[in-house]
Amino acid sequence: MTYETQVRLPFLIQPDNTVRYENGEVFVLDRRIYPFKIEFVRCKTYQDVAQAIKDMVTQSGGPQFCAGYALAQAAHCSSNRSGEGIMEELKQAAKCLVATRPTNNSIILMTEKMLKIAENALKEGQNTEDVLVRAVDAEFQARHRRGLEIGKNGASLIEDGDSILNHCWAEQGIVYTVYTALMQGKRIKAYCCETRPYLQGARLTADALCDMGVNTTIITDSTPSYLMWKGMVSKFFTGADRVTMDGSIVNKIGTFQIALSAHYFGVPFFVFTDGPDPGAHIPDDVVIEERNPDEVLECLGQRTAAPGAKGYYPAFDVTPPEFVSAIITEKGVFSPYSMNHNK
Amino acid sequence: MTYETQVRLPFLIQPDNTVRYENGEVFVLDRRIYPFKIEFVRCKTYQDVAQAIKDMVTQSGGPQFCAGYALAQAAHCSSNRSGEGIMEELKQAAKCLVATRPTNNSIILMTEKMLKIAENALKEGQNTEDVLVRAVDAEFQARHRRGLEIGKNGASLIEDGDSILNHCWAEQGIVYTVYTALMQGKRIKAYCCETRPYLQGARLTADALCDMGVNTTIITDSTPSYLMWKGMVSKFFTGADRVTMDGSIVNKIGTFQIALSAHYFGVPFFVFTDGPDPGAHIPDDVVIEERNPDEVLECLGQRTAAPGAKGYYPAFDVTPPEFVSAIITEKGVFSPYSMNHNK
Repeated sequence: MTYETQVRLPFLIQPDNTVRYENGEVFVLDRRIYPFKIEFVRCKTYQDVAQAIKDMVTQSGGPQFCAGYALAQAAHCSSNRSGEGIMEELKQAAKCLVATRPTNNSIILMTEKMLKIAENALKEGQNTEDVLVRAVDAEFQARHRRGLEIGKNGASLIEDGDSILNHCWAEQGIVYTVYTALMQGKRIKAYCCETRPYLQGARLTADALCDMGVNTTIITDSTPSYLMWKGMVSKFFTGADRVTMDGSIVNKIGTFQIALSAHYFGVPFFVFTDGPDPGAHIPDDVVIEERNPDEVLECLGQRTAAPGAKGYYPAFDVTPPEFVSAIITEKGVFSPYSMNHNK
Repeated sequence: MTYETQVRLPFLIQPDNTVRYENGEVFVLDRRIYPFKIEFVRCKTYQDVAQAIKDMVTQSGGPQFCAGYALAQAAHCSSNRSGEGIMEELKQAAKCLVATRPTNNSIILMTEKMLKIAENALKEGQNTEDVLVRAVDAEFQARHRRGLEIGKNGASLIEDGDSILNHCWAEQGIVYTVYTALMQGKRIKAYCCETRPYLQGARLTADALCDMGVNTTIITDSTPSYLMWKGMVSKFFTGADRVTMDGSIVNKIGTFQIALSAHYFGVPFFVFTDGPDPGAHIPDDVVIEERNPDEVLECLGQRTAAPGAKGYYPAFDVTPPEFVSAIITEKGVFSPYSMNHNK
């Protein structure tokens, strides 16, 4: 299938703008200050990379790729050692990287995969560093292919003239859906909830959509129901941090109250996910992370709250399946009630 | 009726902390920076007061009292003139003050009242400045009495151990309700939505409740439905910028989506108002003000949004009467469907 319209993938989704590898050094985009400043944190050792991950320089999809390149870095630094010595160094590095975010499963998966690749490379007498760098590059390519698949499925739900609402940052899902819809010549208008306290909507989603030339408007997190009341939104999209087997959506706090409004006004709600979590049958199986309460008492480091008041910051909420119109994965578009049938 | 518990009215509600009159000068609390800094803008002439009102130094209930004292100031400056000369100066000042906020009805009402009082004072040979200052002081007293009445009605809905949620800044209504409930020995916990973009909840409501010793927690505007899901909120309170005769509530944007959640979770929603607007039968009779879009692209003057994105800032939304449990005025507690019966 070929498209008439050419669209540029946004800055944030291009591999080199997440993290890149150069002569034994790793450069990580500092998402804490993006898009107000575009700066890369330079990591000379895998320990520097681990520190950058700990310091939240990169989040969500970023840490796994950083960890992959950090292993190449460990191979680079130990290249004068024996095969056994290199593997020992790589295992040490993997342990250190996994420890940065004990709950981030993707770092574990990436480092396990890379350790196996390194072991084979050493057996076959290949340059371990080169092999690892190419393997991480290939992971970026695989991410791109998965993005195109989920985007094709997402774009099948978008009609010419749609006005779509997003909450938080739905990463590959929303980016490739809009990318594909634009390539298909569909005209889209987008609204982004700013998503306090981290402003993922105002900083990341809005930036990515503007990069693709979409007419993008930021609203406060209080405004979605007003837009729906005025008929200004035709579809609501989010990602999901977890989809349970009963079709419930665990996503950024605020998703549920927007989903309630969408249901009241008859606006369909679509959710992107890699797939449901077979280990979580119902929302009670998922622990809702409560982050540092001080984060809701400030904005970009500036105090916003009266002295004496406390903060409370549950990071996610739960939307029951009756408020979800469909779940979009790279495999297709599914009813939330069909999770057991589409693992 | 006497109470065992003594409670101090919060800083923001004490007359001198809104605006005060001293020897021909008016000092206006700068609410743009409160509570991070407590500063009063010093106005030497009524023109200075008009400029302060224009510059948003004070809002909502503040401008009317500023305008009243500004007329005393005009009398002070023209005290060496004839009675006719003084009245001419006062009328000139009133015109200037009313022009600062053409849609703020309370400035018109206050200046009209004060002009009549000045006219009588001149007829009876009294010192016009003194009479006007005392008249504005009396208006503060009247506000306090009305506050106690609405507080008595509001507190009748509060039970010992309640956990109340507030959106935006419900002024006298929420303050005197909590004040009265505390005096009655009821224990209350409060949650305040921060209320982007102006942060009235985080800055004003939270400050006032903390001042009265209430255990006060600030949440993002995305968090109310989560609190309700967890059973952490027993009642939801807001003010209303307008109540239409069909019982609809026009209030700060975000009120409606919280009311929808409250309805879903069976949390009662109570609204404070001076009374319904006989000139507005249905919400379509009320123009929803759309403010400067740039205001949602920043927080306390700091840019929060990606370059290229636009903002959209409707300041109010509409909650239909089926989502409102009761409307509280100084006269009592009413069904939203009874507005025609309780003007």
